Amino acid sequence: MVTRLERAIEIPRQWYNIAPDLPSKLPPVIDQNTHGIADKKILHRLFVNEVARAEYSGERFITIPEEFRQVYSIWRPTPLVRARRLEKYLNTPARIYYKNETVSPPGSHKANAAVAQAYYAKQEGTDRLVTSTTAGQWGTALAFGCTIFGVKCTVYMSKSSYDSKPYRKDLAEAWGAEIISSPSTRTKVGRDILKVDPNSSGSMAVAKSEALEDTESDPTAKDAVGSIMNFVLATQTVIGQEAQAQMEPYEDYPDMVIGCVGGGSNFSGIFWPYYYEMVSKTAPKQVEFLGVESSAVPKLTQGQYIYDHSDVMRMSPLFKMYTAGHTYNPPEIHTGGLRVHGTAPTLSLLHNAGIVKAVAYNQLEVFEAGALFARTEGILPAPESAHAIKATIDEARRCKAENKEKVILFSLCGHGILDIEGYREYFSGKMTENNADPAELKRSLDEVKGLYPWLQGSD
Amino acid sequence: MVTRLERAIEIPRQWYNIAPDLPSKLPPVIDQNTHGIADKKILHRLFVNEVARAEYSGERFITIPEEFRQVYSIWRPTPLVRARRLEKYLNTPARIYYKNETVSPPGSHKANAAVAQAYYAKQEGTDRLVTSTTAGQWGTALAFGCTIFGVKCTVYMSKSSYDSKPYRKDLAEAWGAEIISSPSTRTKVGRDILKVDPNSSGSMAVAKSEALEDTESDPTAKDAVGSIMNFVLATQTVIGQEAQAQMEPYEDYPDMVIGCVGGGSNFSGIFWPYYYEMVSKTAPKQVEFLGVESSAVPKLTQGQYIYDHSDVMRMSPLFKMYTAGHTYNPPEIHTGGLRVHGTAPTLSLLHNAGIVKAVAYNQLEVFEAGALFARTEGILPAPESAHAIKATIDEARRCKAENKEKVILFSLCGHGILDIEGYREYFSGKMTENNADPAELKRSLDEVKGLYPWLQGSD
Repeated sequence: MVTRLERAIEIPRQWYNIAPDLPSKLPPVIDQNTHGIADKKILHRLFVNEVARAEYSGERFITIPEEFRQVYSIWRPTPLVRARRLEKYLNTPARIYYKNETVSPPGSHKANAAVAQAYYAKQEGTDRLVTSTTAGQWGTALAFGCTIFGVKCTVYMSKSSYDSKPYRKDLAEAWGAEIISSPSTRTKVGRDILKVDPNSSGSMAVAKSEALEDTESDPTAKDAVGSIMNFVLATQTVIGQEAQAQMEPYEDYPDMVIGCVGGGSNFSGIFWPYYYEMVSKTAPKQVEFLGVESSAVPKLTQGQYIYDHSDVMRMSPLFKMYTAGHTYNPPEIHTGGLRVHGTAPTLSLLHNAGIVKAVAYNQLEVFEAGALFARTEGILPAPESAHAIKATIDEARRCKAENKEKVILFSLCGHGILDIEGYREYFSGKMTENNADPAELKRSLDEVKGLYPWLQGSD
Repeated sequence: MVTRLERAIEIPRQWYNIAPDLPSKLPPVIDQNTHGIADKKILHRLFVNEVARAEYSGERFITIPEEFRQVYSIWRPTPLVRARRLEKYLNTPARIYYKNETVSPPGSHKANAAVAQAYYAKQEGTDRLVTSTTAGQWGTALAFGCTIFGVKCTVYMSKSSYDSKPYRKDLAEAWGAEIISSPSTRTKVGRDILKVDPNSSGSMAVAKSEALEDTESDPTAKDAVGSIMNFVLATQTVIGQEAQAQMEPYEDYPDMVIGCVGGGSNFSGIFWPYYYEMVSKTAPKQVEFLGVESSAVPKLTQGQYIYDHSDVMRMSPLFKMYTAGHTYNPPEIHTGGLRVHGTAPTLSLLHNAGIVKAVAYNQLEVFEAGALFARTEGILPAPESAHAIKATIDEARRCKAENKEKVILFSLCGHGILDIEGYREYFSGKMTENNADPAELKRSLDEVKGLYPWLQGSD
């Protein structure tokens, strides 16, 4: 039996950036105002310089500053665990491993990206980071990162979450962040919405627009991003790099790497290092990559690969990505982290090239998988992570049916301790599937394509 | 800079039991009915055999079963972190280290003891473990341990916590445990209390009595203990053993080891291995041991070293320990884990011998320390753990005043994510000190001594 001695590894010394190894060049970012190719300055004005730089850089490896690695050591390396009790329950010949990212202080992988952005913000003299959050995982993670490095933090949180998830709000406040219920009177966007509907419960897109307006109106502030962009995804590759080193003593190597997909950061973080071993011909075998999304926001499985904004007010540049459309109105689900309408340009390109596969599940089957995992493996997963668990269970059952010894690795990206309302609803028997409405999806996609028909090529 | 490479260690292979190394023999356990020395059978009937056995065994090391170590690997070894940002904030020459036990699935060190008892319960064929909890940390930890090994779990939770801490209750339920609001109609104790006061908000002592009655009336059940007993404390020594191995590459060794004290399990877990190095003459220096209690329940600093029960209904055997008296009624505080009236017999003996020092703090200064730690080091500590932080900060400030380079190690035994109500009250400015009432303490101690005058020797 392999225990933590043999698995003991150091924290990675660099992040991996997939950009130079993509099968084709990333389509350019488009300026939201001129509709031409975006000038680098736009990104540098909005985002921390290192984040903006990585969006254009062809650099394969980014050195992790030593001073900064010490912060990762608060919770990293995270455990790689063989899910023996789940395997036994499923009576499967598959060998299941998961990377336990639940151990970070805010409770999810988001911490990896948050501390990195706060570190570089401090280095470049940015006083304040502004962001938006829905379920609150990214907001709390950024509050954590900012308090570590002494950067001010402002989080716009959609009113419905602000009211229904007081623990995440209070946690971020304990870390010294300012949490604002969105829509707010702080921004013109917010005031306009409140004029029409004083009781507006807000949305992720509105919160994002408020964060962007706040950032643009304050030269000492920058917008912090929780996913989508190259740098953010690269900072998550500590997950996959550690997993590679930790699985060596087991003398195993994954046949399949699975992660849930909102913007794509935790999935990219675990699969990019394996992708690199494949393209650099050091992988011992072909690895399948499976992204798991919510059937309420099925951008990879039912959306389109087109240019779109990341916010509802069209204040962000345009990225070519799999999207459900920036005005898409998803049904209510207990997985705020997967409600984002678009996915990372890199992940979108790889999915379009057939290198990454995708599958969608509804929340009812996802919570069932999450509850099973809690009772066999002992960690209550975030509903987001439970999507990856559901896909893992299905694959392990296929292995049983076909008597195949597949090695499956998935990212357990966060715990569900502060998502207990969802489990409460699930255990009460009242949870419903809440799949996407095809008509709403079509309306939203048609709207995007109607706005920028000249951008939407023949993919 | 030392990162996790050099600190990478294996999970300990044995637990250390301090019993054979105590400066004098532990006073015998007294039978609550005969008032003579308790027969071993009493403990074996009530507790898991391995727990009962360790209470009498002179065995110094208990081998951790291999199958069981694999479960520890879900979150162990836990990080040892140098608190550089706290040091910098305090501008102290002291070097501060903490052992980050917050990474366990239920969020505290209690997991170490819970999985061990669930493992041995399964081995000996015990179907169900029963326990009581107040703040809910022990109850959730036991639910976690039981689901891992497939043992049924019943938790009596005092009504006030059951109602005010729904997250901990729901978390335990997600792990399949049965959580019962105490007083309940399940037991005679509960029914009698409800007859007098149908709206009773319960207490830890009542919940404990209900758990004991439930256990005694079901031959397939045993009582699970979260602290106090030798075996429970021994299972926590993975904390101190790991810390010793992890501090080696820093070429440091603690001058002082600090832990908060409720029953004494996390403190014993971190200091016992250092105590062993001192008595076995392998320690490079003398180490001070400092237990930190709540001024609301000051058993070590203001209680007495006498024989007492661990429950209010006098159903438990009598242990010689520092106690505030089993009928002591503490003021309301936000640290349920430190409200227990008595402390472990081993810790009590060491405190009485002057080997362990103690200090008490009120909740206002404790939450101030907790908030400072959250904002400098990035982990929101459980209010219990914040007691150890407060003592660490005071010691580090003394080091600054005296220009001393002391090495301080403390146990960060749990996170405060589910104790956010306390922080909310602290940040609102409404928190009060809530120290013990000396008259109530005297009343309670007099009552115990009046009950068993012949047991209370000349200490």
